[in-house]
Amino acid sequence: MQGVAIPTIAILGTGLIGRAWAVAFARGGCDVRLYDSLDGAAESALMAVEHMAEDLHRADMLGGATVANLVARVSVTDTLEAALAGADYAQESIPERVEIKRAFYALLDDLAEPDAILASSTSALLPSTFTERLNTRHRCVVAHPINPPSLIPAVEIVPAPWTNLEVVERCAELMERIGQKPIRMKKEIDGFIMNRLQGALLQEAFRLVEDGVATPEDVDIGIAHGLAPRWSLMGPFETIDLNAPGGVADYVARYGGMYELIGKSQSRMTTWSGALLDRVTKARRDVLPLDKIAVSQARRDKRLMALMRHLRDTDTDTEN
Amino acid sequence: MQGVAIPTIAILGTGLIGRAWAVAFARGGCDVRLYDSLDGAAESALMAVEHMAEDLHRADMLGGATVANLVARVSVTDTLEAALAGADYAQESIPERVEIKRAFYALLDDLAEPDAILASSTSALLPSTFTERLNTRHRCVVAHPINPPSLIPAVEIVPAPWTNLEVVERCAELMERIGQKPIRMKKEIDGFIMNRLQGALLQEAFRLVEDGVATPEDVDIGIAHGLAPRWSLMGPFETIDLNAPGGVADYVARYGGMYELIGKSQSRMTTWSGALLDRVTKARRDVLPLDKIAVSQARRDKRLMALMRHLRDTDTDTEN
Repeated sequence: MQGVAIPTIAILGTGLIGRAWAVAFARGGCDVRLYDSLDGAAESALMAVEHMAEDLHRADMLGGATVANLVARVSVTDTLEAALAGADYAQESIPERVEIKRAFYALLDDLAEPDAILASSTSALLPSTFTERLNTRHRCVVAHPINPPSLIPAVEIVPAPWTNLEVVERCAELMERIGQKPIRMKKEIDGFIMNRLQGALLQEAFRLVEDGVATPEDVDIGIAHGLAPRWSLMGPFETIDLNAPGGVADYVARYGGMYELIGKSQSRMTTWSGALLDRVTKARRDVLPLDKIAVSQARRDKRLMALMRHLRDTDTDTEN
Repeated sequence: MQGVAIPTIAILGTGLIGRAWAVAFARGGCDVRLYDSLDGAAESALMAVEHMAEDLHRADMLGGATVANLVARVSVTDTLEAALAGADYAQESIPERVEIKRAFYALLDDLAEPDAILASSTSALLPSTFTERLNTRHRCVVAHPINPPSLIPAVEIVPAPWTNLEVVERCAELMERIGQKPIRMKKEIDGFIMNRLQGALLQEAFRLVEDGVATPEDVDIGIAHGLAPRWSLMGPFETIDLNAPGGVADYVARYGGMYELIGKSQSRMTTWSGALLDRVTKARRDVLPLDKIAVSQARRDKRLMALMRHLRDTDTDTEN
């Protein structure tokens, strides 16, 4: 969005993800339009945006914005045409079914401004699967957040094989402008980057449970109270780079043999069903009955907001 | 250590890990003796213990203890015999070579009190490899921390096949008593639990770099600014359990297919050498020259201490 004074963003689909995107874009100074094909959905999303902005304000996570000026930047549009007219960028967050996406993008193909970027929030569909037949498929990407993008900065920008790489770059620049942390992917791949990393960790977690080496709780202790704090400061490569006096090459010289030994017993894929899934489910339900999940989610959201503020503040405090 | 009013701990080997253990045990109210076979090493470790205690005090991470009463609980012993006489527990942190450990445990076998637990800080050696021939091998475990244990609570208690499981339990109770978070492992396995999980994540990270899908920096952004904050609040199983209204079984019903697809392309082991390691090294050295590693480590330690305090405080604040 270089050269665009105030970008106009069309939020298409206003469920949990769309409304969190609306907050992130409006906080970042963009004009935001909400569109949802379901009657009344965009209006209730606008109320949710205001509540989210108030929560973020209380947590000092609105940057320079106030609740009032953030909300003033967000409007409801009644038609897809009105949402897209003059919009520089569309963030689509409609249901995760490929036939629904295909039909919707066929509309966007014609209705969106010629230079507008069309970005999908999909986590599970490759961009090539729903943009191939479009006339303007070169301007389509996935911009996949970790929910909610109003709190979690990382976002993967994923091109289809025919996406113009300048579109990836413009999308990434828009994300940086609003304070997100974009990952510019070189090509599409199932799970993108973040879910591939999460999947690799979960595969080993399920293997340890299946092999009777660890309980699900043991795994959670080892990550939450062991490995993840360092990772949330700097990621796994920087972590090992700082864990040996000579950096990552020195670390690999010291511990590469151990990881090679470990790696040899990590190729087996686990099947997340039957007795194995029952064990994990039982372990979780023993500590958290299903009817308490909503309470735990609310507690998580509160702690996550405080944590993200803490990480932001110490990143700035100790710079250099 | 149930029934022991004030446990006496022998810290055997007083390098970086041994001295951090000394702080953790003394902060937890134990009497601590430092022993190192190298002349003068235990004395300088005692000074380091005092400095670490001062840093922790400034960060409000000493619990109820003061620097003075923590340091008063730590003494230097000149001989292994003196360190072990009357000690309830020995935490061994000598060099990671199996022949050195074997010779050392042959001494401990005779010198330690009959009921004392012998625990090793090793990260890379299975307990069976250096305790098999001991008369008292039933009381030997690994108690593997994430360094430094004075800041990071997780510790894996790993039995050899002949370890008495009551010893695992007593060791875990001691760890809980001093505020650590023990993982009671059911059996030994290469990498234990935490390095197996870290290894699985690193394998996928190296694969993504090797396949040209991501740069090392992309991986670090996705973890640090995407996945790890949630993991540091609750670990990967609790994370997915709270990411679907019906808990982990519901999550697997929704996303299991995607993870199965991902898993199929994650069985290839990467070799951390040659061009691949060069790429990772270059990416790190481009942002951090080797002569700046010590500065970055100091910054990491400062941020890690602040993060651990934050996680401790919000865990308490929002309980229930």
